[in-house]
Amino acid sequence: MIKKISEAFSFGGQQLVFSHTSETNNCEMNFAVFTPPNFKKAPVLWYLSGLTCTHQNVMEKGEYRKKASELGLVIICPDTSPRGDHVPDEKDNWQFGSGAGFYLDATQTPYDKHYNMYSYITTELPKVIESNFDFDMSRQSIFGHSMGGHGALIMSLRNPNKYKSCSAFAPIVEPSTASWSSTAFEKYLGNDKQNWSDYDSVALIKKGNIFPEILIDQGEEDSFLDEGLRPWLLSEACANTSIKLSLRMQPKYDHSYYFISTFMADHLNWHRERI
Amino acid sequence: MIKKISEAFSFGGQQLVFSHTSETNNCEMNFAVFTPPNFKKAPVLWYLSGLTCTHQNVMEKGEYRKKASELGLVIICPDTSPRGDHVPDEKDNWQFGSGAGFYLDATQTPYDKHYNMYSYITTELPKVIESNFDFDMSRQSIFGHSMGGHGALIMSLRNPNKYKSCSAFAPIVEPSTASWSSTAFEKYLGNDKQNWSDYDSVALIKKGNIFPEILIDQGEEDSFLDEGLRPWLLSEACANTSIKLSLRMQPKYDHSYYFISTFMADHLNWHRERI
Repeated sequence: MIKKISEAFSFGGQQLVFSHTSETNNCEMNFAVFTPPNFKKAPVLWYLSGLTCTHQNVMEKGEYRKKASELGLVIICPDTSPRGDHVPDEKDNWQFGSGAGFYLDATQTPYDKHYNMYSYITTELPKVIESNFDFDMSRQSIFGHSMGGHGALIMSLRNPNKYKSCSAFAPIVEPSTASWSSTAFEKYLGNDKQNWSDYDSVALIKKGNIFPEILIDQGEEDSFLDEGLRPWLLSEACANTSIKLSLRMQPKYDHSYYFISTFMADHLNWHRERI
Repeated sequence: MIKKISEAFSFGGQQLVFSHTSETNNCEMNFAVFTPPNFKKAPVLWYLSGLTCTHQNVMEKGEYRKKASELGLVIICPDTSPRGDHVPDEKDNWQFGSGAGFYLDATQTPYDKHYNMYSYITTELPKVIESNFDFDMSRQSIFGHSMGGHGALIMSLRNPNKYKSCSAFAPIVEPSTASWSSTAFEKYLGNDKQNWSDYDSVALIKKGNIFPEILIDQGEEDSFLDEGLRPWLLSEACANTSIKLSLRMQPKYDHSYYFISTFMADHLNWHRERI
């Protein structure tokens, strides 16, 4: 059962927000759906957001509706973590808990009851979408920003037959070793780093996981570039594989939605050609 | 003296925010400026926002940067009222005070010391812009949303030689008689309604003010249509004048930025052809 929270007509389509009870995350979850003018059997593009975001940030600032409407793409924007008074959290820590689910399935108590964003995005929410909308779920693609770029990459590398294409804006490519994610990984997954590799793009590629093509845009003035993002680690990992990585360094751009919105239409075109 | 608050590269241009001390409003004021790639001697388009907004809402949700960048338009987005602890306000009233300056010059104590948005937008801020940027201030146009649409209309009708073109999204066309503005008008301007007519588009047109062409987009599902906006009053007022009004009623659209962003590029094209 999904419940409509809001709806607005935009660029000839509809921007909708729903809530539902997630069994995977044991809480109420919101997600946004943009339907283009003729959405029957339309392909579905998932957008995963970054740290601190909800479904709402990209919905307000991402500027995807014009192009999605033209291309006939459904855009689905989930939340970035479970939420609620009963969900364990660290209120003052923006890199863990609410808004920082890191798209993994936690194994450690008490987080394992709620922080299961990997299964939520790859399995539960697609089923919810399939049973409530007449989209073409045999054509799904995925992209995201920062932590959400990480999510899109790991989900594609682990499910190359599920997603037709993958791209990212400024993704965290090796979260196991990045300062803003490694402490969260330890809390969610325990201190045996062997168990972290399924949620780390570079580690997955080193283990042999592949995805045909990946498009990445990265701002050169992004203040998180050297410590948190380090796209060159992904380039190095892809170098001796069949993965075709297009890493586009964008001079002057930062980490914000001013950057994302600039290249949004490019990414939508990329996905539409492949989905 | 203006102070840069933030800057971000976007769509090949720059989204900037500044603050300065407004002499007209006796307080610190913020304003946003988008500069396209080649902005030397570029024309300037003013966007006036609606009730409750700051410069920020349209900057985040208006989706103007792509088209402004293509067309070489500078976009300036001022705040909607004076603000500050020393500025008289009614905290719980969204239709008066902070966020509700109604683009007029108040005559009543204590509001007359601060609430002078008409002079601020038409006189003070253009001078500030002129002395800090190398834009072409002989080519200015203006548009806005709701209360800001009202602002754009009255400023154009009173200064037909100052602005090259005027348009609006869902403007308040007769604020003197609309429920959400008439009580504010009384507090700012006193109870002699003769003094309100200079800030009322329909009244100005009835007095003989003209502007060559006006473009208006209005959503048919706008919940403020019948009580607050009533664009048909403007149609009636323009009927026997030389004003060429293009009023486009847009089925299914509401009052939000989902509506505004949809028609933003159209309005930018309209202004670019005339500026």
